[in-house]
Amino acid sequence: YEPKWSSLDTRPLPKWYDEAKVGIFIHWGVFSVPSFETEWFWDRWQQGNKDFVKFMDENYRPGFTYADFAPQFTAEFYDPNQWADIFQAAGANHFAITSVSSVTDGLNGPGIYINRHTPCIEVNFSYHLLINYNLIGSHMPAGFLVKAQTKSRKKRFVYSWRSLLYILLLPCTSDITTPDTYWKSKEFLAWLYNDSPVKDTIVVNDRWGIGDTCNHGDIYTCQDRYNPGVVQKHKWENCMTLDRGSWGFNRKATLDTYLKLTDLTTLLAETVSCGGNLLMNVGPTHDGRILPIFEERLRQFGDWMKVNGEAIYGSKPWTHQNDTITPAVWYTSQKSGSETTVYAMLLKWPEADVLHLGAATPSPHTTVSLLGYHGNNFKWAKSSTGMQVQIPAIPFNKMPCDAAWVLKLTALSS
Amino acid sequence: YEPKWSSLDTRPLPKWYDEAKVGIFIHWGVFSVPSFETEWFWDRWQQGNKDFVKFMDENYRPGFTYADFAPQFTAEFYDPNQWADIFQAAGANHFAITSVSSVTDGLNGPGIYINRHTPCIEVNFSYHLLINYNLIGSHMPAGFLVKAQTKSRKKRFVYSWRSLLYILLLPCTSDITTPDTYWKSKEFLAWLYNDSPVKDTIVVNDRWGIGDTCNHGDIYTCQDRYNPGVVQKHKWENCMTLDRGSWGFNRKATLDTYLKLTDLTTLLAETVSCGGNLLMNVGPTHDGRILPIFEERLRQFGDWMKVNGEAIYGSKPWTHQNDTITPAVWYTSQKSGSETTVYAMLLKWPEADVLHLGAATPSPHTTVSLLGYHGNNFKWAKSSTGMQVQIPAIPFNKMPCDAAWVLKLTALSS
Amino acid sequence: YEPKWSSLDTRPLPKWYDEAKVGIFIHWGVFSVPSFETEWFWDRWQQGNKDFVKFMDENYRPGFTYADFAPQFTAEFYDPNQWADIFQAAGANHFAITSVSSVTDGLNGPGIYINRHTPCIEVNFSYHLLINYNLIGSHMPAGFLVKAQTKSRKKRFVYSWRSLLYILLLPCTSDITTPDTYWKSKEFLAWLYNDSPVKDTIVVNDRWGIGDTCNHGDIYTCQDRYNPGVVQKHKWENCMTLDRGSWGFNRKATLDTYLKLTDLTTLLAETVSCGGNLLMNVGPTHDGRILPIFEERLRQFGDWMKVNGEAIYGSKPWTHQNDTITPAVWYTSQKSGSETTVYAMLLKWPEADVLHLGAATPSPHTTVSLLGYHGNNFKWAKSSTGMQVQIPAIPFNKMPCDAAWVLKLTALSS
Amino acid sequence: YEPKWSSLDTRPLPKWYDEAKVGIFIHWGVFSVPSFETEWFWDRWQQGNKDFVKFMDENYRPGFTYADFAPQFTAEFYDPNQWADIFQAAGANHFAITSVSSVTDGLNGPGIYINRHTPCIEVNFSYHLLINYNLIGSHMPAGFLVKAQTKSRKKRFVYSWRSLLYILLLPCTSDITTPDTYWKSKEFLAWLYNDSPVKDTIVVNDRWGIGDTCNHGDIYTCQDRYNPGVVQKHKWENCMTLDRGSWGFNRKATLDTYLKLTDLTTLLAETVSCGGNLLMNVGPTHDGRILPIFEERLRQFGDWMKVNGEAIYGSKPWTHQNDTITPAVWYTSQKSGSETTVYAMLLKWPEADVLHLGAATPSPHTTVSLLGYHGNNFKWAKSSTGMQVQIPAIPFNKMPCDAAWVLKLTALSS
Repeated sequence: YEPKWSSLDTRPLPKWYDEAKVGIFIHWGVFSVPSFETEWFWDRWQQGNKDFVKFMDENYRPGFTYADFAPQFTAEFYDPNQWADIFQAAGANHFAITSVSSVTDGLNGPGIYINRHTPCIEVNFSYHLLINYNLIGSHMPAGFLVKAQTKSRKKRFVYSWRSLLYILLLPCTSDITTPDTYWKSKEFLAWLYNDSPVKDTIVVNDRWGIGDTCNHGDIYTCQDRYNPGVVQKHKWENCMTLDRGSWGFNRKATLDTYLKLTDLTTLLAETVSCGGNLLMNVGPTHDGRILPIFEERLRQFGDWMKVNGEAIYGSKPWTHQNDTITPAVWYTSQKSGSETTVYAMLLKWPEADVLHLGAATPSPHTTVSLLGYHGNNFKWAKSSTGMQVQIPAIPFNKMPCDAAWVLKLTALSS
Repeated sequence: YEPKWSSLDTRPLPKWYDEAKVGIFIHWGVFSVPSFETEWFWDRWQQGNKDFVKFMDENYRPGFTYADFAPQFTAEFYDPNQWADIFQAAGANHFAITSVSSVTDGLNGPGIYINRHTPCIEVNFSYHLLINYNLIGSHMPAGFLVKAQTKSRKKRFVYSWRSLLYILLLPCTSDITTPDTYWKSKEFLAWLYNDSPVKDTIVVNDRWGIGDTCNHGDIYTCQDRYNPGVVQKHKWENCMTLDRGSWGFNRKATLDTYLKLTDLTTLLAETVSCGGNLLMNVGPTHDGRILPIFEERLRQFGDWMKVNGEAIYGSKPWTHQNDTITPAVWYTSQKSGSETTVYAMLLKWPEADVLHLGAATPSPHTTVSLLGYHGNNFKWAKSSTGMQVQIPAIPFNKMPCDAAWVLKLTALSS
Repeated sequence: YEPKWSSLDTRPLPKWYDEAKVGIFIHWGVFSVPSFETEWFWDRWQQGNKDFVKFMDENYRPGFTYADFAPQFTAEFYDPNQWADIFQAAGANHFAITSVSSVTDGLNGPGIYINRHTPCIEVNFSYHLLINYNLIGSHMPAGFLVKAQTKSRKKRFVYSWRSLLYILLLPCTSDITTPDTYWKSKEFLAWLYNDSPVKDTIVVNDRWGIGDTCNHGDIYTCQDRYNPGVVQKHKWENCMTLDRGSWGFNRKATLDTYLKLTDLTTLLAETVSCGGNLLMNVGPTHDGRILPIFEERLRQFGDWMKVNGEAIYGSKPWTHQNDTITPAVWYTSQKSGSETTVYAMLLKWPEADVLHLGAATPSPHTTVSLLGYHGNNFKWAKSSTGMQVQIPAIPFNKMPCDAAWVLKLTALSS
Repeated sequence: YEPKWSSLDTRPLPKWYDEAKVGIFIHWGVFSVPSFETEWFWDRWQQGNKDFVKFMDENYRPGFTYADFAPQFTAEFYDPNQWADIFQAAGANHFAITSVSSVTDGLNGPGIYINRHTPCIEVNFSYHLLINYNLIGSHMPAGFLVKAQTKSRKKRFVYSWRSLLYILLLPCTSDITTPDTYWKSKEFLAWLYNDSPVKDTIVVNDRWGIGDTCNHGDIYTCQDRYNPGVVQKHKWENCMTLDRGSWGFNRKATLDTYLKLTDLTTLLAETVSCGGNLLMNVGPTHDGRILPIFEERLRQFGDWMKVNGEAIYGSKPWTHQNDTITPAVWYTSQKSGSETTVYAMLLKWPEADVLHLGAATPSPHTTVSLLGYHGNNFKWAKSSTGMQVQIPAIPFNKMPCDAAWVLKLTALSS
């Protein structure tokens, strides 16, 4: 590849990424110390935002700076095995974490480490490339290096990650206000695609400089929480966060700030049906904990995936993305030889005992079953507008999950 | 009343308490700063417990003392209105918080404020007595007083509590290793019952000195998480905590450390059916937050109570506490005139479509309904061992709640 | 002794105290952390003194309390051997340190340890009574106990003091705004004089309650920096501080805030000639250092005492305290058998080569010598108003000291 | 000038520097927070020096880093007017302060600001060039920038310095272990000498890279405390510190760690007589104070200079630097027209009443006087080896100073 977009854009997307569908994103940095409203803490405060100025005025000594938070980034409860356990339980199979850069150009404040709003290391649980230690080292949150100074801690960190995580997505600038020529983004990508040790598996996003988002890169993120609702020509990612408002941990968040399982299954259905991947963000605390509410959501999500994963992992968008008659029904498909299985994800349990599907045309061989339900297949009837599925009254303790039930439709008439 | 047990024990229990059934308990103090494993942090550490010593050795300077945690008890996110909102949403109607005492006897360490494991102020949301400010002041957690020094904060605190909370349960020593003569407990109680401004409504527990627990006091707490499983002659309380292991906030707690809704409804059913009250504890953080996982559990519990409260509030133990045939079915009852309504709380949804109740003998007029369900009454049949209730297949979206369903049985044959 | 002043006042002063003349006083406590202007920091701040409020507002977070300073009382550079070395080098032979009391009566602020402006342990370097450890323990500055928690530190502290210091002056309340009946001062003194292990050597001051200062107690301190200029009937103490303004360490102090050697020798001469003792205060830092400027003054003072000590230690007031003709000349005397030696302390080196002494009437046997000078006795002549002493021009490198030169006068005509 | 030493070395030394003789040097940075033994704190600690490791182990939490000290560099007592007042009172007329650099090359630790052992801004009290604000900004200690963030503080700082200080000596690398080609030192100097706004007055030292010290630069510093004892061909500087061991503030320093006035006058005499300048260093505290012991030494030095300055300021080395017969006598000279006045600095007051000077050959017109003495000129006699000066017995209160007395010798036979 040559360092120009016309060449770089020809690179095929590594297969693993499209199949993965679900990843975890972590925002962890000095902002996790104040953990106040947003990971853009420093920026808001410097802009003179009243809430932030008031928070600082009421709780810190005059003259306290953002850098003064750094010693409190202690990570004493950080347990990478536990994190990995939670992320795997969530059914995620890649992983990204915010990077940190020392500021040498004087633009970013009083010359201290600040965390940049950047997905910079994505790690795939199942691949087995060797970690480049320096790479990890140089892109971990500031506090981490601090922490990692004693040998035993460093070892613990490196080994625990090394054992299950391997880098697939490399640092990216995430700077969308500067030309990519400034960062020499294209030169970096050419190296990455041609010569880097991860050249076959690395996947990069589209945040390489002004005008590159939604235009260049292996995957398009376009904007935070991008969720177009229709199929896209280029692989894309819905990068969202379990906290409705903040990517970094936010102490002001109350229960209703967090998405519920039903929100997550809805976003997942909408995203995957349109060809996107879902990157779910959580913000650990300054001391390295993942709040139980995050853990609960991720485990609930993972439990759902255990039942319904065949509709998601490795799936492709179907001819229809959502149903033409019944709202809140989204489709995916899996091909096996010449057979296509279609999955209709019902975001709500049907109010009535008959469900009308407008997008599905049954063949005589069509079967309809509920993923995870051990009872009989559902009865259905062809109708002028598609098909009518009979929804039985299933006792509470026989229901396969609590949200977004998936009907598996085989042998539809194509 | 005279200051001797034979006299004090004759005091009748104020009616409100038995009707209340559900209260909230808060452990908040200097231990909320390390928030490590248990509110007995200081004790464990002083005893040389390895985990605690290691935690201190790895994270604090040598010579750091328990008192040195105090300045970090900052409560900057403390919002009493939000707390009250959550507690009310939980369906709780009384409230207790740990007290603090300055240590003057040299027993408790290096002469600093430490928090004692003591329920000391219980507050009823609906009564309207005036708060004795000094009382509040002298029994709030240490950090609170510190916090409350500026006038505006003090005001905010006092007003917000005063507006909805009024003291009913007063300080108690919670010392069960010293004779009550040392504390002059009986003299205090005589004053409390005879002359105090809260003499008609105050309710005290049984922690007044060696040998008093389970023997004296308006209510018996006996031991933490007391749950005898059979009716008691004296009013009692199941004082338990949403965190399986700790009463104070514990940063090591992960999702499975917290009780689930189904655990709570089980404990509630077991407790109330045997005449007890349930006092559910949560541990706020050093900065005044109630973790979202606590909020979620309390709101789930409150949602359950909105549907099923008539089986709980103001109820009385029935002739049977749990069913003689089907396990995990507990009973309460309500009297209205000569009529007794019985509530059968099913901790699990029946596996089969017929539920056998051994304790219930139907009359021809008996009706069986599911609280919160808008469908028909359930069919039933008399059997040689009691009655058989038909359990219909209820669609998922018609189910009244997610745990512990309550059958209302009227006109049973007494 | 009975617990009434008429009895207690009859106790004779232990001999050692009058002979000692020079002691060291230490103010060390939580106020040594802010070390701002005065050891009355908490009081000034609470009174709303603008400087103190501004200091707190500019340098600490809102809500910061006096108690929050305590964890910074770290004493990591505290070296009792070095302190003792300096104090001995100063020629001091007793020692007092401020006490600390836990506040249980609610009068002293938000319920924390605060340091009281109280001399409470006086220690004499040369006596050898056993230290009562608990006593030391219970009257050390708050931070000390904190510090002393680990066994090794406790040991180090106890042993280092024990090896050279022994208690002679016991705790006193230093409360001059409350009746002594409140403190049961007289009962305590009766015990102290009758039964305590230090009953023969203990010396107490006059700060036992309203109206007691300058009226009762072994020694009168009357008021800070008491220096009456005339002989007193009762033993008294000039309790002063090397920092002109503060007793605790004060970071705002600049060079001219500290007394110079010449100030100290002037105060010493004025005090001892009138029968008083000089108690010189220094304020160590929060981390246990005695500032070099304090060390320099104390060592300069001690060097002076090495040369001129015979005019001070064990001396008695003479018939005249200061000279009737030449200003700034003060007298002391020593008796040996029937002989009285008189010491004329010249606070300034004479401007002229003849010094007129109005108070001294020479006999034919009178000799006049300069303490520490290795040259000849000074020539003198009787005059109508006393005597005229010839002051020779002494080369710079032969002068015995830099301030307050002492003429030793023998065989004066009494 | 061209960027090569052969050209740069031809630059004449600006006249002001040779005349100034005495300057002040300040070491102030993050090392002023631990203020433990030396400003090389970070280095010693990283090297595993036992004292430093122990100090950290005993007083800080595990994992504490050098960067974690930065928030404690608070400078709340920093008063530039007071500093300037002290430095002027010391008779100093130029000023240097350590610089700070952000570390971008990974050599200096975990990527934080650390202070480099570098004199980088020298300021002359009497010149009036405009300060380049950015320059000040970029070379102040780290904490300063932190401090200077609020507008009012920034203003206070800038204005107070601007009002009396102006830059004459610019940043220099002080790196003597890297080739000057790395730093482009010669290019920088060429700009500085040709085009910079301070090109006529700037004076730089010799710390530009390996091999440059003692070889290139306007003044040679050669090594710390350089004091060769003989005249040098090139202008040189004795850069020393009032604390015998440390350049940064050191909390372990006790009185005998600090040089005394007599040490300073000795160094001054030895330095100036051999053509050097004396740069006296003091280390302020983390909170901006100059310890009283430093202030005392500087004021004592300044008082000496007020009496004896004519032997120092603007002086030139004489034909002899020290006396050939009497030890501890050093010479300087001043020319006025064809007249040369010679100053003999006596580091000790003569033991005998006759002083033999071997280097001075009197003429009949020769006069000998003691600077600051208001009595008669001293009598003298020619001798075979030079001259013999009569030292009168001067009364203590007529002596002009306490150390290093200066004899002014006029009309010597050249």
